[in-house]
Amino acid sequence: MSREGLNRRSFLTGGAAAIGGAALALGGRAVWDEEPVPMPAPDAVGQATEEFRGIRQAGVSTRPQAFASFVALDLRSDVDHDALVRLMRIWTDDIERLSQGRAPLADTEPELGAVPARLTVTVGYGPAVFRAAGLERLAPAWLRPLPAFTVDRLEDRWNDGDVVLQVCADDETTVAHAVRLLVKDARTFVTVRWLQRGFRSTPGSTPPGTTMRNLMGQVDGTRNPDLGVEPELVWQPDGASDALAGSTSLVVRRIAMNLDTWDELDRDGREKAVGRRLDTGAPLTGRKEHDVPDLDAVDANGLTVIAPFAHVRRARDDEHPEQRFLRRGYNYDEAPAPGELSSSGLIFATYQADVDTQFVPIQRRLDELDLLNEWTTPIGSAVFFVPGGARAGEYLGQRLLES
Amino acid sequence: MSREGLNRRSFLTGGAAAIGGAALALGGRAVWDEEPVPMPAPDAVGQATEEFRGIRQAGVSTRPQAFASFVALDLRSDVDHDALVRLMRIWTDDIERLSQGRAPLADTEPELGAVPARLTVTVGYGPAVFRAAGLERLAPAWLRPLPAFTVDRLEDRWNDGDVVLQVCADDETTVAHAVRLLVKDARTFVTVRWLQRGFRSTPGSTPPGTTMRNLMGQVDGTRNPDLGVEPELVWQPDGASDALAGSTSLVVRRIAMNLDTWDELDRDGREKAVGRRLDTGAPLTGRKEHDVPDLDAVDANGLTVIAPFAHVRRARDDEHPEQRFLRRGYNYDEAPAPGELSSSGLIFATYQADVDTQFVPIQRRLDELDLLNEWTTPIGSAVFFVPGGARAGEYLGQRLLES
Repeated sequence: MSREGLNRRSFLTGGAAAIGGAALALGGRAVWDEEPVPMPAPDAVGQATEEFRGIRQAGVSTRPQAFASFVALDLRSDVDHDALVRLMRIWTDDIERLSQGRAPLADTEPELGAVPARLTVTVGYGPAVFRAAGLERLAPAWLRPLPAFTVDRLEDRWNDGDVVLQVCADDETTVAHAVRLLVKDARTFVTVRWLQRGFRSTPGSTPPGTTMRNLMGQVDGTRNPDLGVEPELVWQPDGASDALAGSTSLVVRRIAMNLDTWDELDRDGREKAVGRRLDTGAPLTGRKEHDVPDLDAVDANGLTVIAPFAHVRRARDDEHPEQRFLRRGYNYDEAPAPGELSSSGLIFATYQADVDTQFVPIQRRLDELDLLNEWTTPIGSAVFFVPGGARAGEYLGQRLLES
Repeated sequence: MSREGLNRRSFLTGGAAAIGGAALALGGRAVWDEEPVPMPAPDAVGQATEEFRGIRQAGVSTRPQAFASFVALDLRSDVDHDALVRLMRIWTDDIERLSQGRAPLADTEPELGAVPARLTVTVGYGPAVFRAAGLERLAPAWLRPLPAFTVDRLEDRWNDGDVVLQVCADDETTVAHAVRLLVKDARTFVTVRWLQRGFRSTPGSTPPGTTMRNLMGQVDGTRNPDLGVEPELVWQPDGASDALAGSTSLVVRRIAMNLDTWDELDRDGREKAVGRRLDTGAPLTGRKEHDVPDLDAVDANGLTVIAPFAHVRRARDDEHPEQRFLRRGYNYDEAPAPGELSSSGLIFATYQADVDTQFVPIQRRLDELDLLNEWTTPIGSAVFFVPGGARAGEYLGQRLLES
């Protein structure tokens, strides 16, 4: 019976499951008025939670929730080390409660706080936090704006920031409420610089484990590392210094898609531009999404099947396997500008242990030659240090701020 | 066994359900490698569909999907009756296919069209459609901008429109893709005037049948009519003229919420302003959400429990039971303006048979005296005629356009 129970439980999407009448399946009396089988609770999506406490922050290796808001904030001029500690204490308490479905103390809409929906809030720091805290000596060398790329058309309204909140949940009302509460509780410390809202598929919309599609129709994010096998691609080791243990970095690039010109390209041209099939996401040299692209394969004419300019070739350098990172992107779709049909794109959010050695070389290669550049334009860019998580009794950022 | 099967099916949220090993529950052999119980398909939310064909359009009495985009379009100057017919033929084919999860003919991202997620697209007409079609004689008298209310602070960027598309689905990628395709296919006929994106709770976030909450934390939309009992509140009769049969009207009001000043109000003050409890949504004179408010009940001091200025009292006129309509609203939450903490509100979308006799009198009363006016401001307003649906072989709007 336990194995059966496990099988059933593994099918349930949420944490809560009403187990009823399991004995029936073993040949017990049929009591028709009882629900004879375990079913997901009707609010399983809303009541599921993610763990907040730990040496690493949640929201990085967490299976991506359906919705995300990225909020960049600027520190007010009088914020110093002590003020940062106060802010982090407030946010730690808020985030812990919200993520567990318990309304924070200052929550004026506690009913909106009762649907955690796997909420995670991930806090990141720009260079200004290290300056304000008097900890410039601890700021990683890569914590600065990315080098300029020729494809960039950056707009200042989507760039940089002193602090970032990545707020993710499987319910958009939950995200809106958490953002409002966290910004409100920080109003004496920070002002809002920019806010980007994104989405993926709804839970239950596609089978679990399906890689998301972006609004160009591509399977997006296939080649994510397995952090169980290669945690060092994202995380500073648990045994690193207090300032670094469990930390990582977040790059947020806002990538506009020119769907009007993309529409002019036929299906074959689109697949050649990426090097993958549109239907399955498989490389043009393979059959399944996760097949490894064969960059040397040639067709009957002796040309490489995956073209020199294809995105998968340019994004990949098998001689430098460290040049990989965790992608955790979200689609955006806003009201079109006057005369336009749409305003769509991708919030390209990536996590990596070191921006300079992992992220920048790939972007340089893509900047030099990547056919996708024809239809995509980076219009925003920001880099943040993501401090380690709060273990029991700690506040977020404590090990760094007390270093 | 059939009854058991029915019970199980009624639990499933989507249309598709994998029925396996039902015999087990009746005492059959335990085949452990088979999934012994019927479970919702893992993509049940994405594969569920709503019927497109019928004398009434879908998206009105349809149980509200989680996401909506309202797109107002303006006709290009050369659009005449014939052009409108062509546009409606194109859209009818597109909408029927999208709503059934079959990619339209001109769909350049067919994979995004394969997740219907209960998609509905509801088409409405402003006065300009009747003019362009030479059918002004058939335009309802109420088809014009609402009278000016003193609480209004309308911004032209959210007002009016010649045509509206209400695009709803349980997956936001589905909505984005449908909007893009429908606008693209209409580009020679129309330009985008405004687009408003809204959300409710994700499927599975709250138990089925739960009334949505707005971003002020209130249960919002309790008093919706039962269209099975009172269809005439929304629909023109099936036996009406061809131009009217199965038609209705859509009012879209964009209501900004001033959450900063709302935050200054305590819980008791908030409940008095609305006349309902924040936790359950019950009227202050009742225990449950759907209890009828007792407007005459007095407290120990002889004062009415539901105050003279309370929203539920002002919105209600029991002497004029025809002054009701169907609310089908969505929350919005946008990036805040510089210096602001948030930009949130409600896309207040209502359906009614007659705008002048059902919608306007209520708004007049609320305009005169409604405490909620302190924290809510209408910033956009539009009124549309929603033609009857397309029966088999018809295109949307056909019975009107050929009248």
